Amino acid sequence: MKVNTEKVSFVESLALESGEVLHGFDLMTETYGELNYAKDNAVLVCHAFSGNHHAAGKRDGEKKPGWWDELIGDGKTIDTRNYFVVAVNNIGGCHGSTGPATPNNESNQFSGASFPEVSVSDWVKTQKLLADHFGIDCWEMVAGGSLGGMQALQWAISYPNRVKKAAIIAASSKISTQNIALNEVAREIIKKDEDFHDGDYLSKDVSPKKGLKAARMLGHITYLSESNMSKRFGRRLQDPKNKIDADVNYEVENYLQYKGEQFANTFDANSYILMTKAMDSFDPAKDFDNDLIKCLQTIQAKLLVISFDSDWLFPKEYGVEIQMSAIKAGIDSSYIELEGDYGHDSFLFYSEQYSVALTNFLKSDG
Amino acid sequence: MKVNTEKVSFVESLALESGEVLHGFDLMTETYGELNYAKDNAVLVCHAFSGNHHAAGKRDGEKKPGWWDELIGDGKTIDTRNYFVVAVNNIGGCHGSTGPATPNNESNQFSGASFPEVSVSDWVKTQKLLADHFGIDCWEMVAGGSLGGMQALQWAISYPNRVKKAAIIAASSKISTQNIALNEVAREIIKKDEDFHDGDYLSKDVSPKKGLKAARMLGHITYLSESNMSKRFGRRLQDPKNKIDADVNYEVENYLQYKGEQFANTFDANSYILMTKAMDSFDPAKDFDNDLIKCLQTIQAKLLVISFDSDWLFPKEYGVEIQMSAIKAGIDSSYIELEGDYGHDSFLFYSEQYSVALTNFLKSDG
Repeated sequence: MKVNTEKVSFVESLALESGEVLHGFDLMTETYGELNYAKDNAVLVCHAFSGNHHAAGKRDGEKKPGWWDELIGDGKTIDTRNYFVVAVNNIGGCHGSTGPATPNNESNQFSGASFPEVSVSDWVKTQKLLADHFGIDCWEMVAGGSLGGMQALQWAISYPNRVKKAAIIAASSKISTQNIALNEVAREIIKKDEDFHDGDYLSKDVSPKKGLKAARMLGHITYLSESNMSKRFGRRLQDPKNKIDADVNYEVENYLQYKGEQFANTFDANSYILMTKAMDSFDPAKDFDNDLIKCLQTIQAKLLVISFDSDWLFPKEYGVEIQMSAIKAGIDSSYIELEGDYGHDSFLFYSEQYSVALTNFLKSDG
Repeated sequence: MKVNTEKVSFVESLALESGEVLHGFDLMTETYGELNYAKDNAVLVCHAFSGNHHAAGKRDGEKKPGWWDELIGDGKTIDTRNYFVVAVNNIGGCHGSTGPATPNNESNQFSGASFPEVSVSDWVKTQKLLADHFGIDCWEMVAGGSLGGMQALQWAISYPNRVKKAAIIAASSKISTQNIALNEVAREIIKKDEDFHDGDYLSKDVSPKKGLKAARMLGHITYLSESNMSKRFGRRLQDPKNKIDADVNYEVENYLQYKGEQFANTFDANSYILMTKAMDSFDPAKDFDNDLIKCLQTIQAKLLVISFDSDWLFPKEYGVEIQMSAIKAGIDSSYIELEGDYGHDSFLFYSEQYSVALTNFLKSDG
């Protein structure tokens, strides 16, 4: 599989949904496979909350491969022998694209908390400029899970004639009150860390790692299903030899502590806050009198909507809502609820059903 | 309704489940109604996580009455014209009973984080000493919701001939992996507050309020149901005039911020940690080869097990598990799943079904 990691710089000004303007920006990208002569074999995969442009393959020294490695590769579900797969770190992120932790072009200072709010449709706008950059007139498919699924849906709405198929996985057309509430708790935890300094921590050479860690521990609980946690950890006590912290009693506590710590060492707090805000505010129907049916009517892409039975963060009702609205809007869409062992995170992992559903969708007529 | 608030001091040494010993302790109590001559009309109500001895009635200057005021009072479900109702703040709490925030008898210092771990069966042991103090040989009923329901169950197990009826509401015989995980996140948030000082904050005259606030915000989400939050707040934006914080966008965020702040001003962080640990470790079957049926076999009390349909913290499966084990153990028990609008918190609020179930249970032959 041919892999190319590249930072693509854009000089154009980007008018954001918030009204603010980014004067030029970088997109960190990674591509897998090769773009054919007709440039009609391109697939865009959009990352979820904590993902980035590294979607497949394993780099030197990495413990884990890219986030969708189980599905992307030669001979895999999204077969890189046939498709040119593009992954991008979204703006506002912290893996190479312009964001709160990259030095501002003009002042050469970190923007930190002053980095503008970005939205799902802003991301889609930048991805459309990236398509132009590659000379891709129309994506064969745009796909993503969770916040990535929201981008896939937004693509179909924003650029009807530039995407043939959109796979909207473990996502919704807007998040629930409970999810907004959970995001607010995560933000509260981070912002009240003594090292947060109102978001200006980078200029002080510190990072609110304690807050990020706890926020991620909470997130992790919501990504997994109760039955999965119960099967993996039950109420087993942690072996004292491997306790990450003396106060830990149960294995599940130790696991969360470990996962949280790992994350806090690699993620930027302002990016975390910004991503959760983008998730909260996603609601494409708001520009169509809050009518999702009306919102979907101009879609030309074919949709595939997938929910997982163990996902309690984005339960199947949200997938069904998109599907029912698509039917009423008279657009081509199919829905499937799949078994998933990993709760919301199920979208990251291979299963035969999941793979068959995606492969057939990708092969079908657009 | 006759109300009596009284601190009862015990000089006896209390051997705790952890192996540590409390040399004397105080219990803050509140009683409603009058104990009859035969002393056989007594009902013990056990408080949940953040509750205390103030279960009913409204004190001067209070905005809200006691936590079970909807059910306790003259002419109410637990009718104080007929019953003598006893409520007690559990040891380790922070409302007058001996706990981390009360000065140690010997040193006159706050015990803070060095206050010993207490368990549900420790609480029941102190409540048994309180029964002795009142001259109550046998409770007509012990009742409680959530962590209070665990105490009701433990009473029936620990003192078979001293309780006639036990109402175990919105509870379980042990909490799930997910609940342990959520408790661990709450503890992490509190302990990493810069004002926590390894639990020794009182001697420094500070309090980890930021951590307590965020922990309570998280707790609050788990106590309410998604449908209730959705009905109350939806995705409505907060009126800018009443924003508690400039960064708040949605009403639900503002509500959680407000609730969290209120709580942080009245609760002790070490108590919070201790209560969650008591909840994590509750598992009476562990002393019976992890066999709940065997554990329940010596119970003489009649049980009433109640779950609420909207409770996702202690879903009905846990109530059903107790009931099925009780049936197999051959003891007298009945189970009902009730509609509740408030998720886990439903146990706090009056409904006709709920009231009828409790009244009939209380009136039935023991």
